[in-house]
Amino acid sequence: MTSDILDKISFDSHGLVPAIAQQHDTGEVLMMAWMNADAVLETLETGQVCYWSRSRQSLWRKGETSGHVQQLVDFRIDCDGDTLLLLVEQTGVACHTGRHNCFFTSIRDGKAEIISDVEISPEAMYGQKTPGP
Amino acid sequence: MTSDILDKISFDSHGLVPAIAQQHDTGEVLMMAWMNADAVLETLETGQVCYWSRSRQSLWRKGETSGHVQQLVDFRIDCDGDTLLLLVEQTGVACHTGRHNCFFTSIRDGKAEIISDVEISPEAMYGQKTPGP
Repeated sequence: MTSDILDKISFDSHGLVPAIAQQHDTGEVLMMAWMNADAVLETLETGQVCYWSRSRQSLWRKGETSGHVQQLVDFRIDCDGDTLLLLVEQTGVACHTGRHNCFFTSIRDGKAEIISDVEISPEAMYGQKTPGP
Repeated sequence: MTSDILDKISFDSHGLVPAIAQQHDTGEVLMMAWMNADAVLETLETGQVCYWSRSRQSLWRKGETSGHVQQLVDFRIDCDGDTLLLLVEQTGVACHTGRHNCFFTSIRDGKAEIISDVEISPEAMYGQKTPGP
């Protein structure tokens, strides 16, 4: 099954594919991150979402530090295979800022506006260290 | 306002940023495409979503050929500025295959499964020519 599924995904020149995480029952778009082939396989095999961190250049098991894991509910591939949509059950919050999702800046009347509040302080999630995405 | 907003977006080395389109009222994730600075500005100015086509290397006014336009409802930027979320009102269908959204392939029990039907034939949308994304 492994190679069949990887064959359906068009990884970019860096071996990566963007993956959108969406809360399966509310439809909330939580975040977008990247996967390489290993992250795809681990996610499908374990049912726990694992990305590839471009900044750390390593597998990023979402929630490993914070406990805010994403349980895979459905794994979808788009029409030309170059984007993934992951339906997930999000524990806690998805964003490293402590907000429920990462898309909390809206452009309204030509200005950037913060439209959602921090639910859990980054310090409470990570201790003194606040890792980026 | 223009430069302020562009300053909040981290375009990649090709001058592009991924943009997720979501139907504003149902939460359906419709598609993911790319924008350059001109596409961002045109979208904000006109309220009609305009992407950058990487295959055609030109602005891609969504729905220009098919009539299946996306009216912008809200424009959001993620926590690190490298992904956009566009809440839209989709006319017709978003996918060039004639399906309502592009994420119609699901991996279930280790196999790829088509989970939604074609609503409008590509021939009806585009005539004899079927442009890719």
